[in-house]
Amino acid sequence: MKIAVDTLGSDLGSQPIVEAILNFLKENSDVEIIAFGKKEELSLLEGKCEIIDARDVVPMEAGPFEVLHLKNSSMCQAVKATKEKGYDAVISAGSTGGFLSAATLTLKLLPGIKRAALISPFPTFVKGKKMVVLDIGASNENSAEELYQFAIMGQLYSKAVFNTQEPKTYLLSNGTEDHKGSPLVQEAHKLFKERNMEGFMGNKEARNALDGTVDVLVCDGFTGNVFLKSSEGMAKWMGNMVKSAFKKNLWSKLGYLHVKKGINEISETLDYKSTGGAMLLGVNGVVVKAHGNSDAFSFKNALRVARSMVLANVNEKIKEGLAANE
Amino acid sequence: MKIAVDTLGSDLGSQPIVEAILNFLKENSDVEIIAFGKKEELSLLEGKCEIIDARDVVPMEAGPFEVLHLKNSSMCQAVKATKEKGYDAVISAGSTGGFLSAATLTLKLLPGIKRAALISPFPTFVKGKKMVVLDIGASNENSAEELYQFAIMGQLYSKAVFNTQEPKTYLLSNGTEDHKGSPLVQEAHKLFKERNMEGFMGNKEARNALDGTVDVLVCDGFTGNVFLKSSEGMAKWMGNMVKSAFKKNLWSKLGYLHVKKGINEISETLDYKSTGGAMLLGVNGVVVKAHGNSDAFSFKNALRVARSMVLANVNEKIKEGLAANE
Repeated sequence: MKIAVDTLGSDLGSQPIVEAILNFLKENSDVEIIAFGKKEELSLLEGKCEIIDARDVVPMEAGPFEVLHLKNSSMCQAVKATKEKGYDAVISAGSTGGFLSAATLTLKLLPGIKRAALISPFPTFVKGKKMVVLDIGASNENSAEELYQFAIMGQLYSKAVFNTQEPKTYLLSNGTEDHKGSPLVQEAHKLFKERNMEGFMGNKEARNALDGTVDVLVCDGFTGNVFLKSSEGMAKWMGNMVKSAFKKNLWSKLGYLHVKKGINEISETLDYKSTGGAMLLGVNGVVVKAHGNSDAFSFKNALRVARSMVLANVNEKIKEGLAANE
Repeated sequence: MKIAVDTLGSDLGSQPIVEAILNFLKENSDVEIIAFGKKEELSLLEGKCEIIDARDVVPMEAGPFEVLHLKNSSMCQAVKATKEKGYDAVISAGSTGGFLSAATLTLKLLPGIKRAALISPFPTFVKGKKMVVLDIGASNENSAEELYQFAIMGQLYSKAVFNTQEPKTYLLSNGTEDHKGSPLVQEAHKLFKERNMEGFMGNKEARNALDGTVDVLVCDGFTGNVFLKSSEGMAKWMGNMVKSAFKKNLWSKLGYLHVKKGINEISETLDYKSTGGAMLLGVNGVVVKAHGNSDAFSFKNALRVARSMVLANVNEKIKEGLAANE
């Protein structure tokens, strides 16, 4: 298995990525890495993996057109080589917009797919149970037909990666009743029902979306992004408040020692870094977008995610599944 | 000051509302309450306030048209009396959709207002600092022009109730850059700039919306609802996890005694019940929607909110402010 890695353009620079690659390779002898970036920053990788000197950086806020002019960037080179040399996956922690457009334009959409979607695994309130949400931000707006394809792709992902039997699928809405929702959600709801989508359970409110009843949560990219980031912001805030509450005095510090394990369990469940990042579904290849502020732990998880997507043959299953749902 | 109270249709029944009224009246001798509901459930209020026997209940999920056929309901009677007798405010913990349509159709929109908006105060990560978010669910979709009016109304509310000097106003978006957002947000962003809206600071991501930099957060009703409920769901989940982490063993229970105060501070900051509910801005009257599951504490806060909106003369200020922004 060959994975192309863009080492430039993330918030914390290439060093955590180098560290992640080294750790990942130690544990996964079945994977070869091809690292794209500034040669002198990748010296620790010499002898461990192939290094391609590609020195241009795609700025964090690069738009879809800007990135196409940066042909010599590590990002574009990594994507291009993935296409041309048939690598199994490509990963970047750089500009989301840039990476998504480079990947979509170069690798192309799967046959019949109208829009690619960013999908992310989410923790739920039920320990050990994961769900997926899509689209969390590849698009700014979507049609009902696109939401239908997102649902099908999300179900196939859930089956392939989490071994779900019949993934329970919901539309993210402002109420549980069938008629609730934005005009888009109302239209999608009708469409899902008309086509007798397997596992479609109706609407779910954001408040209960993580209660463990959902396997696949479907929404347009703008709403999904708001959902993801609201949850993230609140979780971070509460985590900090709990920590500072424990620092109040000697007694509370002693108390903390005794609940640390519990608190750590919470943090692990909620740590979006442990999910490694988001995957772009619907393109011809495994594309993983690691967090912009990836540390070595987070980026290693992104590498793991890519490996398991390749092993689970997610894209082949999506192709077959889409054909079956035509 | 006279406040009409609908005592039917909430999740917990009329008893918590009766208790809230009694407690509220003890502390606020300047307010008269007119209670609408089933006479026999309101016997404790006899001699304390006017009681109007109105026995029909608007179901929680009543649509806008359904509610109009329930003319004898406590909800419709309370709204109608507010209009006809010129009461200062009306409050209900019943069906949100039903109450909003009854209030809008009976009391009418303020001159020039295209859509009413539900506004809610929000805690922020900065202790003591509150912000407002609107619309959190009166509409399913909005135009850029409507978002403009929401922003102006939100600013006037923030000035009147929180004494903000120049309320810092943001659009909720999926990125901070000017060009980011759904087509609606992009259009609204341009409009806010073209009209040189005072205090308009640009886009804010959901992740940072509660960081204390925002006074007024503007969004369409569907997105606002997702934002509100994602934050609420995550806060509730983490609160429960922290509590159960403390219950693990004797030591952690002892630890809990020492951090209880800190944890309580967190819960109070986050308790949406302490905000009492949401206000409908843009209609000719003070309209407060208490939480559907209001207990006595929560409903008393809703009464407080109504009183302070009347005292702050919010509607007059909105009327003047809108005229000035024409």
